[in-house]
Amino acid sequence: MADDPMPTDDAATPGTSSGFETVALAVEDRIATITLDRPERLNAFTPRMAGELVAAFDATDADDDVRAVIVTGRGRAFCAGADLAAGAETFDYGRAPERAETIDGAPRDLGGVVALRIGASRKPVIAAVNGPAVGVGATMTLPMDIRLAAESARFGFVFARRGLVPEAASSWFLPRVVGISQAMEWVATGRVFPAAEALAGRLVSRVVPDAELLPAARAIATEIAENTSAVSVAASRHLLWSMLGASSPWEAHRRDSRLIAELGAGPEAVEGVTAFLEKRPPRFPGSARDAVPGLVPEWTARPADPAR
Amino acid sequence: MADDPMPTDDAATPGTSSGFETVALAVEDRIATITLDRPERLNAFTPRMAGELVAAFDATDADDDVRAVIVTGRGRAFCAGADLAAGAETFDYGRAPERAETIDGAPRDLGGVVALRIGASRKPVIAAVNGPAVGVGATMTLPMDIRLAAESARFGFVFARRGLVPEAASSWFLPRVVGISQAMEWVATGRVFPAAEALAGRLVSRVVPDAELLPAARAIATEIAENTSAVSVAASRHLLWSMLGASSPWEAHRRDSRLIAELGAGPEAVEGVTAFLEKRPPRFPGSARDAVPGLVPEWTARPADPAR
Amino acid sequence: MADDPMPTDDAATPGTSSGFETVALAVEDRIATITLDRPERLNAFTPRMAGELVAAFDATDADDDVRAVIVTGRGRAFCAGADLAAGAETFDYGRAPERAETIDGAPRDLGGVVALRIGASRKPVIAAVNGPAVGVGATMTLPMDIRLAAESARFGFVFARRGLVPEAASSWFLPRVVGISQAMEWVATGRVFPAAEALAGRLVSRVVPDAELLPAARAIATEIAENTSAVSVAASRHLLWSMLGASSPWEAHRRDSRLIAELGAGPEAVEGVTAFLEKRPPRFPGSARDAVPGLVPEWTARPADPAR
Repeated sequence: MADDPMPTDDAATPGTSSGFETVALAVEDRIATITLDRPERLNAFTPRMAGELVAAFDATDADDDVRAVIVTGRGRAFCAGADLAAGAETFDYGRAPERAETIDGAPRDLGGVVALRIGASRKPVIAAVNGPAVGVGATMTLPMDIRLAAESARFGFVFARRGLVPEAASSWFLPRVVGISQAMEWVATGRVFPAAEALAGRLVSRVVPDAELLPAARAIATEIAENTSAVSVAASRHLLWSMLGASSPWEAHRRDSRLIAELGAGPEAVEGVTAFLEKRPPRFPGSARDAVPGLVPEWTARPADPAR
Repeated sequence: MADDPMPTDDAATPGTSSGFETVALAVEDRIATITLDRPERLNAFTPRMAGELVAAFDATDADDDVRAVIVTGRGRAFCAGADLAAGAETFDYGRAPERAETIDGAPRDLGGVVALRIGASRKPVIAAVNGPAVGVGATMTLPMDIRLAAESARFGFVFARRGLVPEAASSWFLPRVVGISQAMEWVATGRVFPAAEALAGRLVSRVVPDAELLPAARAIATEIAENTSAVSVAASRHLLWSMLGASSPWEAHRRDSRLIAELGAGPEAVEGVTAFLEKRPPRFPGSARDAVPGLVPEWTARPADPAR
Repeated sequence: MADDPMPTDDAATPGTSSGFETVALAVEDRIATITLDRPERLNAFTPRMAGELVAAFDATDADDDVRAVIVTGRGRAFCAGADLAAGAETFDYGRAPERAETIDGAPRDLGGVVALRIGASRKPVIAAVNGPAVGVGATMTLPMDIRLAAESARFGFVFARRGLVPEAASSWFLPRVVGISQAMEWVATGRVFPAAEALAGRLVSRVVPDAELLPAARAIATEIAENTSAVSVAASRHLLWSMLGASSPWEAHRRDSRLIAELGAGPEAVEGVTAFLEKRPPRFPGSARDAVPGLVPEWTARPADPAR
């Protein structure tokens, strides 16, 4: 995204949160935690936050020490949605000078910029929803792989109550996560609903007491970090998400035949199989940065790019 | 469907049920109720009913007073399936003079004509399944957004027991509603199953005592009518259903960037955001009739149409 | 697959298990049971087993007496995954002379060869998972229509723990069976999990005591055999699975309009409707072998084939 005008130049050094104003990035025990960090505004989403989220995922992808990413919110909210400080003009993107990037002649929806960046992450992403996740606060979690909710979490796809439509490519993601019928009920009513309804509707995989939210997220991240190959996880993540759009399993067969051939003859599989046979923890040598370039170009490049 | 030979000329005046023989259409409190109305035949499906259902959805789409549509059955059944009064020749469509419209050289399946019309509805559609919903009685509910069942409802995708295949485009809809494994179990066995099995398999979102069925459906319809923009709901409905077939979230990003740009600068979003900030109920000015023409042409036009 | 070098020439005579070394095929009461049959190796998957599974499904498709297929494992495992007797070189397919068939220049993944053959089956397939189903032992069940688990079953999509990626086209199948979020959690962690977690995640539709597994599978198979048309089930199976990849329900409408027109005027529907009206069991005349040739070529032919 070389022509992206968002404030990503000052991307944080991995392991620190310097350079960011609206999010915090910390790395510990091979787990990155990205914290939405505008607690005084219930972590409301701004163009700057969009840019910093993109930069944060650029940083976690570039850092080999990061094996999984947790996204959560500072304070009592996860993300209350778009910041409405500009009032009724909030969504009049044509007036916003910072919205120079366009797609098919329209200003790119910033929720979508973030969602597509998360969808292309080379590390698995776990949402730890600690409080209200409304509007883009809900839709930005959909391209994450796993969603856990605290008991005090609540969710709302409230766009129809604001005179808008679901954004952040959620018309594509939401029915694939919860099914079309549950998606339509939440979108058509625009209701805000509690964690229990999110669990029943399979938007989240688990609801835990508030104090156990981050430990539960870290337990899954640790399970990934201690047992798996970073190359395998990056390639698998892109395979599964991109095959959601494939018209036939033959497309998957073509892709995984090539991947199995390449990985099967390489050091990752040698270590994985050897460690298994020797009943010891694996020490995989590879980096997610080297995982299968060009595997799913449509997820990592803009469709307008010639490379696509 | 100008070349559609079905009896739609005498379409009912919205708010009344005049002009229909096999369905009843009533509008009250901004909610349209379409009642399958052949109780003496367990509301069995006929070519005339297909035409009247299409006309009824044409009427609810055209009536700005309608914010949601409920479909239910008169008497003890929802719809017992195709009317078999013609006996073994029932499905020999080649002999039926009223089946003049064709697709790729074959007479169009009338269940599919109805299902695709419901899929293109600009208003959200709630099935209130009050009794047996078998064959086309089950498949016609799949493009509806929400399905509620009375305790005495039962369902059956019985086509394999009649020497047929699932129709009404249900091979596309059913796996997207309940998943491929549940879909295949119901289709391969052709079994008739009770409401509890429909709930466990996620075909319906709720089972309620018979007397509470219509009130439960009306409560959801009212939640939509009182809180949301008709423009937003129409656009959202088309977005979500059509994105089920999109190969990548970039397609959704392109569509919703344009929609957010258009709606965000317009009166719907101004009212939605203003009402929210003023903590008052919204009074949206727009009409679903004006919602995003051409948004999802493949759902509203026949593929054979040059416009597609 | 005329150019398939796998050992299918000695395909078993239907009704017997002669000619197979690694699987057993038996037909009784119109139900075929394919048993993975290397109990001393926990039914670990080998190239020979891949070829024999393809041959076994060729045999069940060719045998009109077979109305449904059950797949299970001999002994205490279902299938422990790829046989690792070759150690760290197991997945270095380039060295394996028996892997002559390629796709896009890579040796075809044998799990995918099996999965795509099962996906193209003209008979419904029921997995009766009697014990550990790990790696290809788990992924080979995904194109089966129904999965039942014994209480002692357990599952693992362990590829990321071996330095590989999910194979057998499971990047396409798994998210369509269990949803993308559950799929990603199992794939990214590579964890082995018990039957109860498989049930909660909808990988299996039921968990039963070990002794009731095969009776439960046979009950479903019998329900199919006694009540349905073999032609209808074969056509329905191909319709539903192939429409998972269709971009719009209009594609299904086109296909089922043609199928209903053909079947509706033919002997299957005449018998199905007549038996229903006469309240007697149907006696369908047709054969699954004759069901709709060319219906879903992309599932039965290699994409490289000119016919596709």
